Amino acid sequence: MKLKYSVFLGNVGHCFDRYCTEYSKPFSLEELFSRVTTIKNIQAVDLVMSRDMMEKKEEIRKLLAQTKLEVGSLAVDTFANPLYRKGSLSSTDENVRMQAIRDAKEVIDFAAEIGCGIVTLWPGQDGYDYIFAADYIKERQLFADGVEELCRYNPEITITLEYKIKEPRTHSYISTVGATLLMIEKIGLPNLGVALDYGHAALGYETPAEAVAMCKMYGDRLKHIHINDNYRLWDDDMIVGTVHTLEFLEFFYWLKRTGYNGYLVIDQFPYREDGRDAVAESALWLDALQEAAETIDGKEVEAVIAKRDGVAASRYMRKLLFGRKMQ
Amino acid sequence: MKLKYSVFLGNVGHCFDRYCTEYSKPFSLEELFSRVTTIKNIQAVDLVMSRDMMEKKEEIRKLLAQTKLEVGSLAVDTFANPLYRKGSLSSTDENVRMQAIRDAKEVIDFAAEIGCGIVTLWPGQDGYDYIFAADYIKERQLFADGVEELCRYNPEITITLEYKIKEPRTHSYISTVGATLLMIEKIGLPNLGVALDYGHAALGYETPAEAVAMCKMYGDRLKHIHINDNYRLWDDDMIVGTVHTLEFLEFFYWLKRTGYNGYLVIDQFPYREDGRDAVAESALWLDALQEAAETIDGKEVEAVIAKRDGVAASRYMRKLLFGRKMQ
Amino acid sequence: MKLKYSVFLGNVGHCFDRYCTEYSKPFSLEELFSRVTTIKNIQAVDLVMSRDMMEKKEEIRKLLAQTKLEVGSLAVDTFANPLYRKGSLSSTDENVRMQAIRDAKEVIDFAAEIGCGIVTLWPGQDGYDYIFAADYIKERQLFADGVEELCRYNPEITITLEYKIKEPRTHSYISTVGATLLMIEKIGLPNLGVALDYGHAALGYETPAEAVAMCKMYGDRLKHIHINDNYRLWDDDMIVGTVHTLEFLEFFYWLKRTGYNGYLVIDQFPYREDGRDAVAESALWLDALQEAAETIDGKEVEAVIAKRDGVAASRYMRKLLFGRKMQ
Amino acid sequence: MKLKYSVFLGNVGHCFDRYCTEYSKPFSLEELFSRVTTIKNIQAVDLVMSRDMMEKKEEIRKLLAQTKLEVGSLAVDTFANPLYRKGSLSSTDENVRMQAIRDAKEVIDFAAEIGCGIVTLWPGQDGYDYIFAADYIKERQLFADGVEELCRYNPEITITLEYKIKEPRTHSYISTVGATLLMIEKIGLPNLGVALDYGHAALGYETPAEAVAMCKMYGDRLKHIHINDNYRLWDDDMIVGTVHTLEFLEFFYWLKRTGYNGYLVIDQFPYREDGRDAVAESALWLDALQEAAETIDGKEVEAVIAKRDGVAASRYMRKLLFGRKMQ
Repeated sequence: MKLKYSVFLGNVGHCFDRYCTEYSKPFSLEELFSRVTTIKNIQAVDLVMSRDMMEKKEEIRKLLAQTKLEVGSLAVDTFANPLYRKGSLSSTDENVRMQAIRDAKEVIDFAAEIGCGIVTLWPGQDGYDYIFAADYIKERQLFADGVEELCRYNPEITITLEYKIKEPRTHSYISTVGATLLMIEKIGLPNLGVALDYGHAALGYETPAEAVAMCKMYGDRLKHIHINDNYRLWDDDMIVGTVHTLEFLEFFYWLKRTGYNGYLVIDQFPYREDGRDAVAESALWLDALQEAAETIDGKEVEAVIAKRDGVAASRYMRKLLFGRKMQ
Repeated sequence: MKLKYSVFLGNVGHCFDRYCTEYSKPFSLEELFSRVTTIKNIQAVDLVMSRDMMEKKEEIRKLLAQTKLEVGSLAVDTFANPLYRKGSLSSTDENVRMQAIRDAKEVIDFAAEIGCGIVTLWPGQDGYDYIFAADYIKERQLFADGVEELCRYNPEITITLEYKIKEPRTHSYISTVGATLLMIEKIGLPNLGVALDYGHAALGYETPAEAVAMCKMYGDRLKHIHINDNYRLWDDDMIVGTVHTLEFLEFFYWLKRTGYNGYLVIDQFPYREDGRDAVAESALWLDALQEAAETIDGKEVEAVIAKRDGVAASRYMRKLLFGRKMQ
Repeated sequence: MKLKYSVFLGNVGHCFDRYCTEYSKPFSLEELFSRVTTIKNIQAVDLVMSRDMMEKKEEIRKLLAQTKLEVGSLAVDTFANPLYRKGSLSSTDENVRMQAIRDAKEVIDFAAEIGCGIVTLWPGQDGYDYIFAADYIKERQLFADGVEELCRYNPEITITLEYKIKEPRTHSYISTVGATLLMIEKIGLPNLGVALDYGHAALGYETPAEAVAMCKMYGDRLKHIHINDNYRLWDDDMIVGTVHTLEFLEFFYWLKRTGYNGYLVIDQFPYREDGRDAVAESALWLDALQEAAETIDGKEVEAVIAKRDGVAASRYMRKLLFGRKMQ
Repeated sequence: MKLKYSVFLGNVGHCFDRYCTEYSKPFSLEELFSRVTTIKNIQAVDLVMSRDMMEKKEEIRKLLAQTKLEVGSLAVDTFANPLYRKGSLSSTDENVRMQAIRDAKEVIDFAAEIGCGIVTLWPGQDGYDYIFAADYIKERQLFADGVEELCRYNPEITITLEYKIKEPRTHSYISTVGATLLMIEKIGLPNLGVALDYGHAALGYETPAEAVAMCKMYGDRLKHIHINDNYRLWDDDMIVGTVHTLEFLEFFYWLKRTGYNGYLVIDQFPYREDGRDAVAESALWLDALQEAAETIDGKEVEAVIAKRDGVAASRYMRKLLFGRKMQ
């Protein structure tokens, strides 16, 4: 079973970093949608609903209708809006926190309107940079309270939390798969889950397949997946498959084993590449990697896993990749 | 309030690594106890109850009586015994797993006998090295089941789980503060807690003070602390205070704020130093750092923290360290 | 002897990252200069000579005269100009490379005009992101050739190379102190040196004091220093002294021992702080840390170092920080 | 052209780490040789010439003759002998340093006797753990002087320096490819080169193919290669190919492009695996990876590289791995 692909709309456009603001030229909303449609194996878009985007709801509805693209998820902008530069739902500034909740509810409403069942929170600014600059308990609790309020606001919409150990803050509250599942467990509502970003997992020294397994184990909470690649020490947001190979195969195997059937959302920062082409590359890699993962025979791999032996695992991976006979 | 110090008995002895087995000469049990007594601000020892140590229970009792040293905690040897080289409580080999449970129960019994209320599990071998070599759900569940059984075995003894993201396995199951508290939350028994190793927290890119806060927030689970220092990228197990300074001050502040009153257990690997002297150094650093942390005024620091501002935090830390007037 | 401070002019202004472009409001050139003058222990500015800044040479001259600020160094903009997004001096696109050389020569000329003896090259875009996307030999050689041409262009101006292991590229050519000194050694010209960024050294798992020593040893090449702080795993560009303490003391000791008498250039990214206040904090930390380092007695520290012993080093550091009597 | 394989003799035996000394049972010298011969695509052994091994020269000669195994290189034991626990050639203890030179000369003599042209120095203990505990200039110079003396001792034998950023010391002097080539450049003798350990390069955030290129560029200094795999953050010494895939292909391409024709020496720590089987796995991976790298067409890959474009590189890698048509 092949999983469907979505892409963050902005990924086919331009991007910037902390040094250079104009690696390439920006595109209009219409151009971005149009560029996505040229990538034939992508069926959906994920949209970051910034204030600017919220004002273009009509245009978005129109472009979705025209392009027949589905919506993987709507993301609340709690990271690009400077109001949230020191935190959104975790903010101890009550005005800021209430605004974050209002922003999120508006996104939830729009999701309901357009028939999108998932709203993603990536709390990139909810954390801290310096020690002696955060009330770790109070702020984490405020964040959890906010999430709970959003879940209760519309039980039909699933809120997904995207964890990442750092950046833009030097330390994030929603940092690891364990910390995220713990908060979800304590909130205890059914319409709350994890948005697992493959690169974030790798950055946090997690084995992505194990993160998938933990989401399954602790409440079947995996509801959305962002995908990209990196060198493990930073969220490089590269084209899928250009660094890792075998770990993707294990990842897809565990997705199948645990019954994940949501989207794979391409989420990368092609600073120096053509955004559309970089996304198309990732989609082709996903095809190739998923196809390779499909050759995994359930009984065989379970027998290998059951051995808990590096040599057996190595032999199996070698076969998977090169189809060689075993010595 | 100054916290009391314990030390892993072996720390005053010799150590080895994967290249060199004889950095220095080994000491007898009696010599180790005797060496600890020469460090006047250390009141207790933590003991790793290997098979060999279990056979010396009488001698241990005698040496404890002679030296008047308390026991901070007994640790079950689930990492040096080669039987557990592929896992102890998480082992899918039923014989191995049952033996691990029996070993742990014997240690619990001995703890009860000698009036030590804490038994520590550091599941260093419970994890995996290669992908496709672990059933992440089954093995984690087996581990949790084992822990639950041990907690129920003697409700008077608190079992503490010591997490570490890696080593000796390339990936550990009990990896981060979040994953550990999640397992504890699910087991839900009162005599289960966290043994927080400062260096393990740093290695996992956690802020140790935040880990303390999380333990408080999720069930008041911090029951034991191991202390040492490192360069953040490996569990270097160095003398306390030789790398970090300010983070220790924040750590001690949060320990006080959350009411921790257990031991600080010195836990280091002085490969090339005299073990006794290296431990004595850590104890003196702990005195100095705790004394400096004692100068933290609760109201003042809370006002600083409440600002959530790097400049305010910086100014406060500068004052804390150098007592300078603010510009 | 207290070293003088400079600051990158933009540091007292606003900054942005790859998510948020407007953490705070921008300032005019005049405002930036004015803000620097409010920090009384800063005597100089370092200027990134972007195209935009090159068009303001007159205004810069005027503001320098008005404020009486010295110029620590002029930096060539080879990282923010999108023309160089795939490399400047290492570019295999001859037009791009020639433009980079012309840009640098213009900066050298301006440096000569204003009596600034140092021009800094931070080749942030000279590197690669993906494997199979760089001719490692050809591009490195082109870079070296460009540097040589710049050194020969005006022997009165010292060119300093600022190394950094990564970012904005996932891999930089001028990556470590060793690789940088090697290139300098091969070029072999006297007016070529290292601009050591403390945070870059820490990011590359270098001990900053050892990097200073290596620069001394291999040709006395340390000519400029950027200073900031970070958590070792990313170039967090934080306020000096908010993470590390003792390593700064060793760093200042080795600067003195090797006779460095250039500037300490504050170089940070205060995303969420007031830029001016964050710089002022760093300057105060530098005062305090340098003052503490001044208490280092040469004979005593050399005797400690000569022991090559962790316990002796620990005891010395403890004394340095807390002035305690040794046990 | 397929490169030949060697293996560190001990790799087919047992290993230990800092916690567990008996992961498996030790083997006799004869058994180790015999186990190597059962791996048919391995033609040579590399030997660590500890004091113990030096006393078995006769037996070694006999076993080499019997097994017809070649010798890839002899390594001087400067890391397992506790005499060198604080450094060998860099030791400021003149007796220790002289002994290290004598030990190395004896190994050089034995190499000459048995017709082995390469002697490897892995100065694992030459570095430091704590700050304020090393004279970075003096010790580095002593090391260089020692290396020079060894090169001059027998110009027929090539001395190769194996760099590694850390472990067993927290910081090594011979740390990165740049620092190593710089020392070699300064010594300037022809019979001095680099022993590049693939895993050490990865640990130091080097791209192994770029390290190969730098060795070529700066004097054609690549003379020996150790091979294994890891997760980039530690020298995990795992079976080749179980983590990385594409980077090995680029690595083999650059080895061919730069004319390397020495050995690939398998060098791993199979704590929990059968050593012989783990080595056999690596040899089979090397066969498969080298065969895949052989499909690289020189003109095509050079055209890809010349584009310096992530999308082009991605497309090429995808084709290399999956043979897919480009979109």
